Amino acid sequence: MPDINSARAPINPSRLQAMMDQLSSFGGGPDGSMTRLALSKEDGAARDWLGRWFARNGFAQAVDGIGNQFGSLSLAGANAPVVMVGSHIDSQPNGGRFDGALGVVSACEAVLAVSERLKAENKLPLCNFQVVNWTNEEGARFQPSLLGSCVFAGALELEWALDRKDGDGVSVREALSRIGYAGKESVARPSALIELHIEGDKALYEANEKFGIFTRFWGATKYRLAFLGRQAHTGPTPMAERKDALLGAAYLIADLKQIAGEHGLDLHTSVGRLEVFPNSPNTVPSEAVLFIELRSGSPEILAAAERKMKLGIEAVAEKAGVTFEVRAIDRRKAGRFAKALISLAERTAGNFGETARHLDTIGGHDAVALSAVCPSIVLAVRSRDGVIHHPTEFTSAADQALGTQVLADMLYAMACEGLPASEVAA
Amino acid sequence: MPDINSARAPINPSRLQAMMDQLSSFGGGPDGSMTRLALSKEDGAARDWLGRWFARNGFAQAVDGIGNQFGSLSLAGANAPVVMVGSHIDSQPNGGRFDGALGVVSACEAVLAVSERLKAENKLPLCNFQVVNWTNEEGARFQPSLLGSCVFAGALELEWALDRKDGDGVSVREALSRIGYAGKESVARPSALIELHIEGDKALYEANEKFGIFTRFWGATKYRLAFLGRQAHTGPTPMAERKDALLGAAYLIADLKQIAGEHGLDLHTSVGRLEVFPNSPNTVPSEAVLFIELRSGSPEILAAAERKMKLGIEAVAEKAGVTFEVRAIDRRKAGRFAKALISLAERTAGNFGETARHLDTIGGHDAVALSAVCPSIVLAVRSRDGVIHHPTEFTSAADQALGTQVLADMLYAMACEGLPASEVAA
Repeated sequence: MPDINSARAPINPSRLQAMMDQLSSFGGGPDGSMTRLALSKEDGAARDWLGRWFARNGFAQAVDGIGNQFGSLSLAGANAPVVMVGSHIDSQPNGGRFDGALGVVSACEAVLAVSERLKAENKLPLCNFQVVNWTNEEGARFQPSLLGSCVFAGALELEWALDRKDGDGVSVREALSRIGYAGKESVARPSALIELHIEGDKALYEANEKFGIFTRFWGATKYRLAFLGRQAHTGPTPMAERKDALLGAAYLIADLKQIAGEHGLDLHTSVGRLEVFPNSPNTVPSEAVLFIELRSGSPEILAAAERKMKLGIEAVAEKAGVTFEVRAIDRRKAGRFAKALISLAERTAGNFGETARHLDTIGGHDAVALSAVCPSIVLAVRSRDGVIHHPTEFTSAADQALGTQVLADMLYAMACEGLPASEVAA
Repeated sequence: MPDINSARAPINPSRLQAMMDQLSSFGGGPDGSMTRLALSKEDGAARDWLGRWFARNGFAQAVDGIGNQFGSLSLAGANAPVVMVGSHIDSQPNGGRFDGALGVVSACEAVLAVSERLKAENKLPLCNFQVVNWTNEEGARFQPSLLGSCVFAGALELEWALDRKDGDGVSVREALSRIGYAGKESVARPSALIELHIEGDKALYEANEKFGIFTRFWGATKYRLAFLGRQAHTGPTPMAERKDALLGAAYLIADLKQIAGEHGLDLHTSVGRLEVFPNSPNTVPSEAVLFIELRSGSPEILAAAERKMKLGIEAVAEKAGVTFEVRAIDRRKAGRFAKALISLAERTAGNFGETARHLDTIGGHDAVALSAVCPSIVLAVRSRDGVIHHPTEFTSAADQALGTQVLADMLYAMACEGLPASEVAA
């Protein structure tokens, strides 16, 4: 736990843990798992809980058209800059309890701690604060991921985003309406965005360090690709006459692994989801839909991998005797987070004797979407064994408190000294 | 349509078509598709309809422990031999309307036609007739396929079969109970079994012939195999540390295609169903369950293919860094149908000027299960373009009537002349 004597705006670690425990009750399983898919009933209940917290603590709630949930604490007057803080509370199916949730809960606690400190000191802050819970960060139920933050940042059209459908054909529009989060409010872009997140990798854990800063983000190219064959009986249909969509998918999955191998550590490829139709043991599959991801910190490698994959798709379709359709492509560019915020985070962590290792984030974060429109940063606390998207995902209470305290003191510094120069690195 | 003047026990083609149309209303779609999964609500409604038909036409219904539905017409007294006729009314998801359904409906019509003819001639038959609708022939919802006929023939234990579960965890026991077909009656094995079925392949269609006889059946070895990896984020997790269960599955699917290629036309391999967990676009799959089929007319080739596959499973698991579990193995031996019934079918078809091409059945049929305990045979009518397990599966009304007429005249011959010598070829 951070030394409270070094803290400028001391947080309350017990209050933080109580909030984490309460939030975990919405979709949590006895094994530590969390299943709180975006806009599910569990997500709706968790949002309601957050809304009640906002109301009890004097935060004004707003919900925008894509269901992003905001809680504003405006102590600095209407014309002061806004610092936005938060993450997401949706999860993977059978995922963990810290990915996203910690970012929202720590934002609540940090803003509350700062406001309490300001009140105790009878100070007026130079900025206002806004906690945010972004819609469908995970992309597990609806694709693409970062849906709410991308709409907010103007990278996706609201109407298009509302029309996205889950695997059961339910649209985002309908799902928002079912849980009562089809908002209509317009929320302005902030002057800065800070997100605290678990690292989700092993760098901090293996170095025995507690705190890091994501300074760069990888780019990603995501395809939803369907191979199309023809349904037939797996018994009598001669092998030579089969048009097996799953066979095409299998060839491509092997190819994608091969392509990753050609680029060492600089390229990640995956097929995390595969939908097979009709998926009956004795029927040749007529359709196989692959959810493909290519990720790299290098735009050149990402483009090269996509070229190789496209050649691969054509080759395997021919080999399997099937056709294909590209149903969706999502692209996210590689880039860097804001230098001034990185410096502030380093100084603040230093106050607690913590190093602030620079990390790349390969997975997407809402702050990546926001970085296109305002200075943004993701702070990281360590993950035990680097595990994420799994029930054993774990960050200790002490590490959570440390990250939240760094966050609070960064906000306090901005409240007292103003926002750092908004220089955004290229 | 068969020449009614040549028929010994003329069927009523309009009555046959009306029954086919009525049965198609349970699960049929406007595009010709049929989705009547075993023990589904649609299957239950279709069974109720069949039961009403039995009652209206003087057939005594019995339902056994695995839900097989029987309708007996006993005109020859309690000690006379029983000739069983029928097939199944469950279907594939998005399958066709003729696979199985024609066998049950034609059995009803043929037995009715024979009884009408006997009555008109005031003859007492030498055997009794029993129409049958077997439970879960398709194996689409519950595995293994041929579940009801295998239990009836003693190849599977009733309790084990009742414990089989579908993809949602619903057991056969529970599903039978939900639709009211958890029967308790004990039904004796018949003295002969005749099944009429669509060919489901192109031999008859391409030869422009209308009628065939399945004389041999291929063997099948079916594995339910799980690759087990570890759930992780598809973003940060280094490629070298991933344990991707779907990658193992992909390698094996490619291997199985390769193994089939090594045996020319004598081996069919397939993976028709693949279950991926948690199946989220940005999570490395922790589990991939393959439903594998190997089929061959040659026991030696089938065994060789299984050996190759087992080596392949170990090799691909190591290559993908995952483990595996064989969750179930079902085996069906290759064999031949009853010679005496084949001769009777040939003679009867000859009366209508039809050849009776000898065919291999590669897909399973309930008659294959029954052939272990009584003389059995599968008669075949042609399928347009050889299509089966697809909404465009089609057999014309005239071809249906022809097959039903051959069936009726075979039953009539047995009623008048007794059962042919029950010599079963090795």
